Amino acid sequence: MSMTTRQLRSLLGEDGVLRLSLEETEIADPAPHEVVVRVEATPINPSDLGLLFGMSDMSTARFSGTPESPVVEADVSEAGQRLMAGRVGQSLPVGNEGAGTVIAAGDSDEAQALLGKTVGLLGGELYAGLRLLPAAMCLPLREGATAEQSASCFVNPMTALGMTETMRMEGHKALVHTAAASNLGQMLNRICIADGIDLVNIVRKDEQAEILRNLGAQHIVNSSSDTFSDDLFAALRETGATLAFDAIGGGRLVSDIFSAMERVAVADMDEYSRYGSSTFKQVYIYGSLDFSPTTLQRSFGLAWGLGGWLLPNFLARAGAEVVGRMRSRVADELTTTFASHYSQRISLTDVLTPEAIAVYGRQATGEKFLIEPQR
Amino acid sequence: MSMTTRQLRSLLGEDGVLRLSLEETEIADPAPHEVVVRVEATPINPSDLGLLFGMSDMSTARFSGTPESPVVEADVSEAGQRLMAGRVGQSLPVGNEGAGTVIAAGDSDEAQALLGKTVGLLGGELYAGLRLLPAAMCLPLREGATAEQSASCFVNPMTALGMTETMRMEGHKALVHTAAASNLGQMLNRICIADGIDLVNIVRKDEQAEILRNLGAQHIVNSSSDTFSDDLFAALRETGATLAFDAIGGGRLVSDIFSAMERVAVADMDEYSRYGSSTFKQVYIYGSLDFSPTTLQRSFGLAWGLGGWLLPNFLARAGAEVVGRMRSRVADELTTTFASHYSQRISLTDVLTPEAIAVYGRQATGEKFLIEPQR
Repeated sequence: MSMTTRQLRSLLGEDGVLRLSLEETEIADPAPHEVVVRVEATPINPSDLGLLFGMSDMSTARFSGTPESPVVEADVSEAGQRLMAGRVGQSLPVGNEGAGTVIAAGDSDEAQALLGKTVGLLGGELYAGLRLLPAAMCLPLREGATAEQSASCFVNPMTALGMTETMRMEGHKALVHTAAASNLGQMLNRICIADGIDLVNIVRKDEQAEILRNLGAQHIVNSSSDTFSDDLFAALRETGATLAFDAIGGGRLVSDIFSAMERVAVADMDEYSRYGSSTFKQVYIYGSLDFSPTTLQRSFGLAWGLGGWLLPNFLARAGAEVVGRMRSRVADELTTTFASHYSQRISLTDVLTPEAIAVYGRQATGEKFLIEPQR
Repeated sequence: MSMTTRQLRSLLGEDGVLRLSLEETEIADPAPHEVVVRVEATPINPSDLGLLFGMSDMSTARFSGTPESPVVEADVSEAGQRLMAGRVGQSLPVGNEGAGTVIAAGDSDEAQALLGKTVGLLGGELYAGLRLLPAAMCLPLREGATAEQSASCFVNPMTALGMTETMRMEGHKALVHTAAASNLGQMLNRICIADGIDLVNIVRKDEQAEILRNLGAQHIVNSSSDTFSDDLFAALRETGATLAFDAIGGGRLVSDIFSAMERVAVADMDEYSRYGSSTFKQVYIYGSLDFSPTTLQRSFGLAWGLGGWLLPNFLARAGAEVVGRMRSRVADELTTTFASHYSQRISLTDVLTPEAIAVYGRQATGEKFLIEPQR
């Protein structure tokens, strides 16, 4: 048996031009522990766009090729080229997660057990018709789950659960989340409501606040409001949240969160200290909706920590037992807590059209694309 | 017995004016566990200046009072007043550490044992003639140690030792230090040379590099040099340092350190990852020589942590055994590893003169003042 498939690839050339195209690739016969999955649904997540666009300036995009084999080229600034130096000349397959049907399996029992099943997938290279990968990287789903329901069963669900697990592991009692009306943010609200965790949602627009209110969120503050600083203070005071997850990265929101947490801590101090409170405050940056620098005013004492947060690193730290518990909950609550909603369903070739890029490239709340490679 | 003493106090008024003066204060009779120390030597550390000047603009300073009882007043900006809101109206005694002779003691054996001894002191309120404090807060010194030798035996020595202890506790193998030619930086070099720890010293001037070279420092990079980025990369590559302590705080040096550490980590990776390396990089900000915002470019992956570092918080975390070991080493190596050098010796009233403020207020390397309250 010999199979080929088309993969969506991103290649940054020596000339500073990023090239997106569909490349025909051979799929080897599965080794005993491997399976071949027909990819039926794979979402475009913010975490995919970094690899896809590679810091190119999409306003310079040129569209060529044929309708069946479109090509997009765009320029990368010199600063971007320096940051991306590690990937120059490598044709990189895109697509972090997805779901599909196992159509071929190696000889091991583990692989054979998946034959014909619908599975969730993490592991990259999923903007493709077929994907060869170890059976252990497939999440077998409960009876009746469809590929569309399962397409986003890793990145957002495990990240949202990872936030509440981090809260417990690091001894905090409540959470703050920014860009809180995102698909991920909505899942996090459902988890926190179910588990009785206080969650402070920070959004930028009234419509986003409305989405969360309709989900039953208790604490919603709008960073565009004139009263943001006081609203955030009040929400933090009420919840006692000393841990935040930030999807934005750039600008001064992280600094504002630290300052508001410190204001709460200082309000309970009997005596002035120029070193601020001893209440430890932690913010994790897990996304980069804003690529501008993070600006810290440092007017929040010395008991604080800021760090990057990346799902694979967290899973490695959490260990097999915690990860197993998280995966099992995702499978159980796939169509409730962890339901994702898509605004558009497109084919692999559609991904490379100006019309689609103009929408999914914006990463606007409510605009989530699902790729259906079998279209 | 009733005693009074003069204390140097800093008071921020409702009107936004900071007022420095010497105030006569009563010293109560020592309780059984307490002692009264005649303060003979107390340094002006960067960590004292924050409380002393309270973000006032010393270019607006007005000098009044009498030669025996001078008064300095200076304006605090509205932003500064907001940051300092917690101290408005409180007359705060200044002076973190010092040394002197125990001249009265409570009835406990512990207190009585110190009578007549020279001791090192941590605990604030030391810009004063006398200080009443618990015997447990005194560090008894080895026979023959003078007050001047002992005046700086807490903040810098324990901070420098705290850096190498942190390195071990958090699993790093080498260190980076900024503003590295400071008194503290020189101690850290002596510790690292004695203990065989690789230390990358970052300085801003050639004269500072020279000071460290004369101490035997192996890795010195100048952040003002055109080749800084490559020099830092080379030093990090050679040492494998993934932990830095930064005294500066503001600007982009922290970001540059993370970027250089990441460049080293990525150089050893076989495969490109848009999330960067999985090598964990940590920077602690322990000072604020530059009050401007910390600017993070975030071009260093997601495996990083940034935090504040404060000696009392570290000591609480390290526990009694580690702290006891650190204190004992300070006493043993007081005149070698932990020797401090002073450029000027002044009286309490001298502290409030324009001539002195013009020099110690600059926090320049090599300019360290010792106050001798008995002058």
